[in-house]
Amino acid sequence: MNAEIIAVGSELLLGQIANTNAQFLSAQLAELGINVYFHTVVGDNADRLEKAVKVAQTRANLIIFTGGLGPTKDDLTKETIARLLQRELVIDKEALHSIEAYFARTGRTMTENNKKQALVLQGSTVFRNEHGMAPGMAMTVGAITYMLLPGPPKEMQPMFSKYGRPFLMEKLDRHERIESRVLRFFGIGESQLETEIEDLIEQQSNPTIAPLAGDGEVTLRLTAKHHSEIEAKKLLDQTEQAILTRVGRYFYGYNDDTLFKNTVKLLKEKKKTVAAAESLTGGLFLTELTAIPGASQVVRGGVVCYTNEVKEKVLHVPASVLATDGAVSERCAKLLAENVRALCGADIGISFTGVAGPDPLEGKSVGTVYIGISTSENETAVHALALSGPRDAIRTRTAKYGCSIILKKLAAACL
Amino acid sequence: MNAEIIAVGSELLLGQIANTNAQFLSAQLAELGINVYFHTVVGDNADRLEKAVKVAQTRANLIIFTGGLGPTKDDLTKETIARLLQRELVIDKEALHSIEAYFARTGRTMTENNKKQALVLQGSTVFRNEHGMAPGMAMTVGAITYMLLPGPPKEMQPMFSKYGRPFLMEKLDRHERIESRVLRFFGIGESQLETEIEDLIEQQSNPTIAPLAGDGEVTLRLTAKHHSEIEAKKLLDQTEQAILTRVGRYFYGYNDDTLFKNTVKLLKEKKKTVAAAESLTGGLFLTELTAIPGASQVVRGGVVCYTNEVKEKVLHVPASVLATDGAVSERCAKLLAENVRALCGADIGISFTGVAGPDPLEGKSVGTVYIGISTSENETAVHALALSGPRDAIRTRTAKYGCSIILKKLAAACL
Repeated sequence: MNAEIIAVGSELLLGQIANTNAQFLSAQLAELGINVYFHTVVGDNADRLEKAVKVAQTRANLIIFTGGLGPTKDDLTKETIARLLQRELVIDKEALHSIEAYFARTGRTMTENNKKQALVLQGSTVFRNEHGMAPGMAMTVGAITYMLLPGPPKEMQPMFSKYGRPFLMEKLDRHERIESRVLRFFGIGESQLETEIEDLIEQQSNPTIAPLAGDGEVTLRLTAKHHSEIEAKKLLDQTEQAILTRVGRYFYGYNDDTLFKNTVKLLKEKKKTVAAAESLTGGLFLTELTAIPGASQVVRGGVVCYTNEVKEKVLHVPASVLATDGAVSERCAKLLAENVRALCGADIGISFTGVAGPDPLEGKSVGTVYIGISTSENETAVHALALSGPRDAIRTRTAKYGCSIILKKLAAACL
Repeated sequence: MNAEIIAVGSELLLGQIANTNAQFLSAQLAELGINVYFHTVVGDNADRLEKAVKVAQTRANLIIFTGGLGPTKDDLTKETIARLLQRELVIDKEALHSIEAYFARTGRTMTENNKKQALVLQGSTVFRNEHGMAPGMAMTVGAITYMLLPGPPKEMQPMFSKYGRPFLMEKLDRHERIESRVLRFFGIGESQLETEIEDLIEQQSNPTIAPLAGDGEVTLRLTAKHHSEIEAKKLLDQTEQAILTRVGRYFYGYNDDTLFKNTVKLLKEKKKTVAAAESLTGGLFLTELTAIPGASQVVRGGVVCYTNEVKEKVLHVPASVLATDGAVSERCAKLLAENVRALCGADIGISFTGVAGPDPLEGKSVGTVYIGISTSENETAVHALALSGPRDAIRTRTAKYGCSIILKKLAAACL
């Protein structure tokens, strides 16, 4: 199967957004062993879209469209494909119901143009949109399979994963299995990780090993092919074992794991609760934890102590400590962790104080960070970090460090 | 001039990176008033690249290539264009010198294939690469202008700005100015906004009006052309005026403004401070405000009151209120806002309580949200919302609503 991905949307041609949909779908199709030979971007214009489809029909037998399924006159992907394939557009009742329900629920008035979103190509397999209104669809006409997906990544990605990918796998009816697994690391740089497993990367053929760095983390994607799923997984297991023998201390999870998800998960398993005192992170640590459904079982809450007054009044850090050691100090971090644990009645109290930048603070340079961790049965520990990068990166990495500290404490069963 | 941007590189088709080069160039060309009608991505394969160029020649008179100018056998953009245009590739002496100098400077051995990088199309205008080795180039053959730029954004962007853009401006010989302006709206859906200004959109020609929705916001990009910059701006002003007469109550800013940036900015201007009690948002509101440098002047801090115990113990919501009205209630929101303002010593106290989902809470459905706002001189107000969407969207929109409420209060000068 040779694929072309056509993104429809003038905002892409104006440079307002990058075509991250093509990136996502390309990575997904690569995993399925489908060759992607072309990406095309075209604006909200019926003639030019028609031209682009005709070109794609000469060079691909799978054409995936993103965008142009919305309610406005500008949205014309379905209409153009229907005309080219000489198919009718028909109302999908389930989609219409869910659009009407959406408007009823939000108390907003449903304008007539919203009904257009429920139109689908007659005879197509309809993909429900669980994160928006416009459904997706797929159908094979002659030798070519057409798949239409919505433009917003938040709608497109889950729809493709849940409906588009299984549709293609059935279509492929493949006997060779492709198994892949992502190993996630924190606290080690990409070049150091690569150096430590250089010989493994050089010997790689099956599985292949592909490193990728981003957001202070490094991942390794292992991909194995075998006609037996069990054998493919065995190949992955062996390579994973060889890698973790070298760099296992930086490893924290697989695939879609995140430090935040794993922290919530392990807290639940160990039946422990957490509270946080956040200065430089401004609430980021708790925001990330509470973004995970079910976090309420383990997150008690916390204090965003952005000013010294709040550190003193709400978290009882003595004015003398703030005056002598300063807010960015080991002593302050220790007290914040201990006191937020007591205040919120949690098993674990964690604190973040430091300099996110752009300017130094209290004579301490940007990237100076203290993380305090206080547990019911142990002494409080303080970790001092010297981070670099812009404000956002420092804040994010600090919050992630907090998770890695909690994960290590919980795993070591010292709680 | 109608442009097509062709990115060459298999890493794009494997989904390893997004085509940010096309985004950058599209925004640049839009500023110059050059229409971009298509983007194409093709791999490091001579046959498919040739096909892509032949398609582009039928629909564009400016074709900009990014990537494929490096030293390896995979890099074949120049070679393919030379063959198609029947031009020779010749060594550019200045480029060769600078490549040799680079290797001498770094003490590395220059392999033979690096010389390939100094080859350029005979008769082309050569663009020096001040951030890498491979030069860029441009030439017009018949009615079509070809421009070749390197793939790494760090090399491509400065090269385009310094050499590519002036080359095009001279080519255009344009006296016409292009001015554009983005208007940002919150609290109104895309289809409702379009319905309210439908006639303006339909009449559009100069300026053009392009709507875009995302993250609970809608933007309108106005673009005007005129030989006088002042007149172009006047055209924008008139259209802006006509739009704001209709939907001004949802308007909050221009261009790169965000609700969070504008909230910090207006708080600074009015010399007011804010504190927040965050239940369903889990710290998101304060995280977003403190992401902005200088937020420490206006953000006092706050409490993430994720559990009823923290609401009761830290923010003094009486157990009776939590038992009768519940945590997700107008009364609770009111008390949280008042008490967090007092606790943190801020001018404005804001509170967020509600159901982010995925499950209902206290018999209240997902998306039920109360935002309390307490100011020094006024009664406390509570806004009740019924939002929809996934957990993340509800949290984000709730935090943004908080900003819009604060912005309105500050603008109304009732503080």
